Amino acid sequence: MDIATIVGIVSAFALVVVSIMMGGGLGLFINIPSVMIVFGGTLGATMINYPLADVLSVVKVVKNVFFTKVWSTQEVVDLFVEFANKSRREGILALESEVPTLNDPFLVKGLQLTIDGMEPDAIRDIMETEISYLEERHKSGAEILTTMATFFPAMGMIGTLIGLVQMLSTMNDPSTIGPAMAVALLTTFYGAVAANLVCLPMAGKLKKRSQEETLVKEMIISGILSVANGENPRVIEQKLHSFVAPSARTSRFD
Amino acid sequence: MDIATIVGIVSAFALVVVSIMMGGGLGLFINIPSVMIVFGGTLGATMINYPLADVLSVVKVVKNVFFTKVWSTQEVVDLFVEFANKSRREGILALESEVPTLNDPFLVKGLQLTIDGMEPDAIRDIMETEISYLEERHKSGAEILTTMATFFPAMGMIGTLIGLVQMLSTMNDPSTIGPAMAVALLTTFYGAVAANLVCLPMAGKLKKRSQEETLVKEMIISGILSVANGENPRVIEQKLHSFVAPSARTSRFD
Amino acid sequence: MDIATIVGIVSAFALVVVSIMMGGGLGLFINIPSVMIVFGGTLGATMINYPLADVLSVVKVVKNVFFTKVWSTQEVVDLFVEFANKSRREGILALESEVPTLNDPFLVKGLQLTIDGMEPDAIRDIMETEISYLEERHKSGAEILTTMATFFPAMGMIGTLIGLVQMLSTMNDPSTIGPAMAVALLTTFYGAVAANLVCLPMAGKLKKRSQEETLVKEMIISGILSVANGENPRVIEQKLHSFVAPSARTSRFD
Amino acid sequence: MDIATIVGIVSAFALVVVSIMMGGGLGLFINIPSVMIVFGGTLGATMINYPLADVLSVVKVVKNVFFTKVWSTQEVVDLFVEFANKSRREGILALESEVPTLNDPFLVKGLQLTIDGMEPDAIRDIMETEISYLEERHKSGAEILTTMATFFPAMGMIGTLIGLVQMLSTMNDPSTIGPAMAVALLTTFYGAVAANLVCLPMAGKLKKRSQEETLVKEMIISGILSVANGENPRVIEQKLHSFVAPSARTSRFD
Amino acid sequence: MDIATIVGIVSAFALVVVSIMMGGGLGLFINIPSVMIVFGGTLGATMINYPLADVLSVVKVVKNVFFTKVWSTQEVVDLFVEFANKSRREGILALESEVPTLNDPFLVKGLQLTIDGMEPDAIRDIMETEISYLEERHKSGAEILTTMATFFPAMGMIGTLIGLVQMLSTMNDPSTIGPAMAVALLTTFYGAVAANLVCLPMAGKLKKRSQEETLVKEMIISGILSVANGENPRVIEQKLHSFVAPSARTSRFD
Repeated sequence: MDIATIVGIVSAFALVVVSIMMGGGLGLFINIPSVMIVFGGTLGATMINYPLADVLSVVKVVKNVFFTKVWSTQEVVDLFVEFANKSRREGILALESEVPTLNDPFLVKGLQLTIDGMEPDAIRDIMETEISYLEERHKSGAEILTTMATFFPAMGMIGTLIGLVQMLSTMNDPSTIGPAMAVALLTTFYGAVAANLVCLPMAGKLKKRSQEETLVKEMIISGILSVANGENPRVIEQKLHSFVAPSARTSRFD
Repeated sequence: MDIATIVGIVSAFALVVVSIMMGGGLGLFINIPSVMIVFGGTLGATMINYPLADVLSVVKVVKNVFFTKVWSTQEVVDLFVEFANKSRREGILALESEVPTLNDPFLVKGLQLTIDGMEPDAIRDIMETEISYLEERHKSGAEILTTMATFFPAMGMIGTLIGLVQMLSTMNDPSTIGPAMAVALLTTFYGAVAANLVCLPMAGKLKKRSQEETLVKEMIISGILSVANGENPRVIEQKLHSFVAPSARTSRFD
Repeated sequence: MDIATIVGIVSAFALVVVSIMMGGGLGLFINIPSVMIVFGGTLGATMINYPLADVLSVVKVVKNVFFTKVWSTQEVVDLFVEFANKSRREGILALESEVPTLNDPFLVKGLQLTIDGMEPDAIRDIMETEISYLEERHKSGAEILTTMATFFPAMGMIGTLIGLVQMLSTMNDPSTIGPAMAVALLTTFYGAVAANLVCLPMAGKLKKRSQEETLVKEMIISGILSVANGENPRVIEQKLHSFVAPSARTSRFD
Repeated sequence: MDIATIVGIVSAFALVVVSIMMGGGLGLFINIPSVMIVFGGTLGATMINYPLADVLSVVKVVKNVFFTKVWSTQEVVDLFVEFANKSRREGILALESEVPTLNDPFLVKGLQLTIDGMEPDAIRDIMETEISYLEERHKSGAEILTTMATFFPAMGMIGTLIGLVQMLSTMNDPSTIGPAMAVALLTTFYGAVAANLVCLPMAGKLKKRSQEETLVKEMIISGILSVANGENPRVIEQKLHSFVAPSARTSRFD
Repeated sequence: MDIATIVGIVSAFALVVVSIMMGGGLGLFINIPSVMIVFGGTLGATMINYPLADVLSVVKVVKNVFFTKVWSTQEVVDLFVEFANKSRREGILALESEVPTLNDPFLVKGLQLTIDGMEPDAIRDIMETEISYLEERHKSGAEILTTMATFFPAMGMIGTLIGLVQMLSTMNDPSTIGPAMAVALLTTFYGAVAANLVCLPMAGKLKKRSQEETLVKEMIISGILSVANGENPRVIEQKLHSFVAPSARTSRFD
């Protein structure tokens, strides 16, 4: 798991808790009915908004994305330079022997289509369709979290309105106003914390990871087409380096 | 009907009601004039904003989308692999016998045009126009709900402003301030609940369903063009699998 | 005029007025200086934002769009099927006799260019340019209303701030605070009503009407090009039906 | 200068001032430290956000755009019909004599390239690049004003927060609360006025003017290419009329 | 470093400090727990949202962008006119001798590919891919700052809610309410200052610089392709001038 995520979650919540403890007990900030309406209400709205399978899959998508290792861009460059060399020396069919050693189904599919002699344009079509639907599936996870980040503060406000209406309509004893209003504000507090410390940054990381994965997949398409066209390994390296920050480029030809 | 929707609506509203009951009676939260201004005003603004037919059709669109069964992507893949086999063995005209067994007008139209020998490019044009206008009609339903989700809180605020102005201008007896303000806040409460627990999540599900339907229709176009071009069933399967998550792909050739 | 618009405006305002009357007199909600600053200020900001001619034309655009009858999509389909039949029987020049019976300048222009024997690609270019600039002119009307919908609440807030500053700086007699604040809130109320019950829904309907008109014009282009290419009436009908909801399609060939 | 702009600015500010005077003196609303923090802070943030040259150029862009006369669309149509006639009668080189009479550098450049015999596609490339970078430079001016319209209210809120914190922490004498809060609200007032009565509508007009100028430049490209291709003056007129509202078209051939 | 940035930062913060000092001591506005929750919480959320490397690289990107000198557009025009002259006189291979004198890796790469005789279309592909991924890397820096600008006010609100809940639930002594609320508002103040005086304008400048750099790189592509195609130096100058404001164009041929 990505270290920044753990450090971020732990430190953000620790800071909120410490900051609460400095001004009084944590007990003031725990109120079961408020928890129920904010978290239950948001979950309810999310289940209306998305198919059940999608809501359940968020957990899986989040886990996948945090734990799956993405190829480094340099690995992709090296791999294709090697493929290009082999293919030029021994013919494109020689790449068949590489297929079993690769554990990326996207790469395997592209390579297999190339070895099978499919037209480069057709390969590009199939693989770009695959990327675009992959992106859509990834976006779906981030979108659910973003949607929850709009429902959380809304449920927080609804909870606070309920508390305010109840407090205002039975306002006989001035000394109870303060505590009642404190409780009413808790739902707003829960909504703000859940949206800003959990949903939004998690959605952000999902988008970021999806971008990295898409970049690698686009490099793979570019590489496979170049190999299929029998291009020079040096040219392939230069093409693939265009995807990478200049500082991260390591050439095998210098 | 989709289970998640029922569970979501029931649980979200149950939580709001329970949370109200825990702090006093439900009666506090029912106020006919407030209901009138929020719901009537939003309906009025919606009727200015959209043609009458569109407003009325929301009910139908919502019903259609919740109850219509969408093809599973696997069914589409299987169907076209079968069509491709048949077409290769017995010629494209043999597909004519399949037409009466299909109850999807979009698929029937595409297949009929293929059997009639229309050019693949022309078929693609016609069918993509159809998808794009279908998407527009679907979007219209979601858009009306989204628009209502902006009018609801606005009418809630207008109602609260009316209540506040009346309360403030006749502020002689301090003991009436609290209850009057409680009533004034009710319209804001109604607006927030209607927007966030009904309109926004419903609009969200409409968009989601429309996406699923569009995906299936795009697979159908891709399949029909491949069959029309006499492509290999295995290639067709691979092309159509690009639209599907890798975990959901079941090949008939492995 | 569209019934929904009348019903919407009347019912929304009636509800606001009734809801005000139930809590006291209407007089409380009428304050000339507040009207002046909200409506005058918004008009001023709008006149800075747009050329004078555009601001004045809003009235005309609104009137045009509400009262102009748009062709039904079915009429367009029928018309082109008829044109295609005639053109196939008697040659494209026979359509010349139809021109005087048509009162849509867009259709007349397209037809005339076809009869004059201009290349279909050139016709498409000219007519699509025309649609795109038509859309821009329509958008301009909706945009002015949308802009006003952002200035109205802003002017409402400015008015309320003026009232609050004046009230707070001369706060000797507590009994005057309430009524002074009530008056200060009126500008916010005016701004919210003008934006949400007039500007936004009117802008929404303008966009909707513009969409309908554009759809019909796109059908006309598609039809003219098909007739110019001498396509089969049945094919033309199918092409044009792609623009229409399946439930609204009536074929002349079934 | 555009009349609407002057009338708009004068009337909007007059209304704000009158509305202030009706409720007390103007002095209440003038507070030097509040002016300093809102206007100084916004200027500071703008100077961090944009290169110095861009900030300074806003004044020039605003002046240019308000005072520069844009060609009317009819003038452009007439000019190209005339060019087409001349070019057909005397050859394209005859247009050389027109160049010195034109004072639009964009038109001169296009015409010169045509006379020099450059390929129409190359001319289109050069001139469209020019339009797209012109649009970017124009957008830059509007963007700076829009950015300032987000900094103004933000600085207003920061000023109000400073005032509130100071007032709340030294709250011994209740009679000073009102006036202190009135002063604290002034920064919010300044921010709202500067953003909504100056920055936003000025940015809006800049965008509008830029659109008009771009439209004329696009007509010029279309005209130059048609002349270069030796098209019929009547066809050129029809092509250029597509850019214009039907009511504003005056044909020289009817 | 860009003067405007320094002047902007210094003056904006000086104004805030002066404006605070005029109303009391600076001490009122310093509160360690409030600093901790706003800055710590925002940092935490940012670290959840972005990979650690990206968060750390913001500092470097900011430094790079502020201190790196971008080519002036005129330098690019002059350079390519010179290249074109040389290439026409002595052949394209003569440009090889220029390569060591250039210290822009992007330009060197493009020139080298041209000298190596790669097809112009292939050069364009490689170099446009490079620009598009460069833009993405630049955007990433601006995006992190923009994201922080949404977390800062959110953490400010969370801090204020914590303070309000604590104050309201222990509201016995009215004289402590004011100071407690002043402290509670500090987090909102910190959030607003950090977002509006640091993050947003810094993100804005990053975007601006990235645009300038992209513009120069697009001019370089256009220039290299023209040189590769052996175009006339005068035409090249005109092409490149299209990217530049007319007032900034200096021709070597007039």
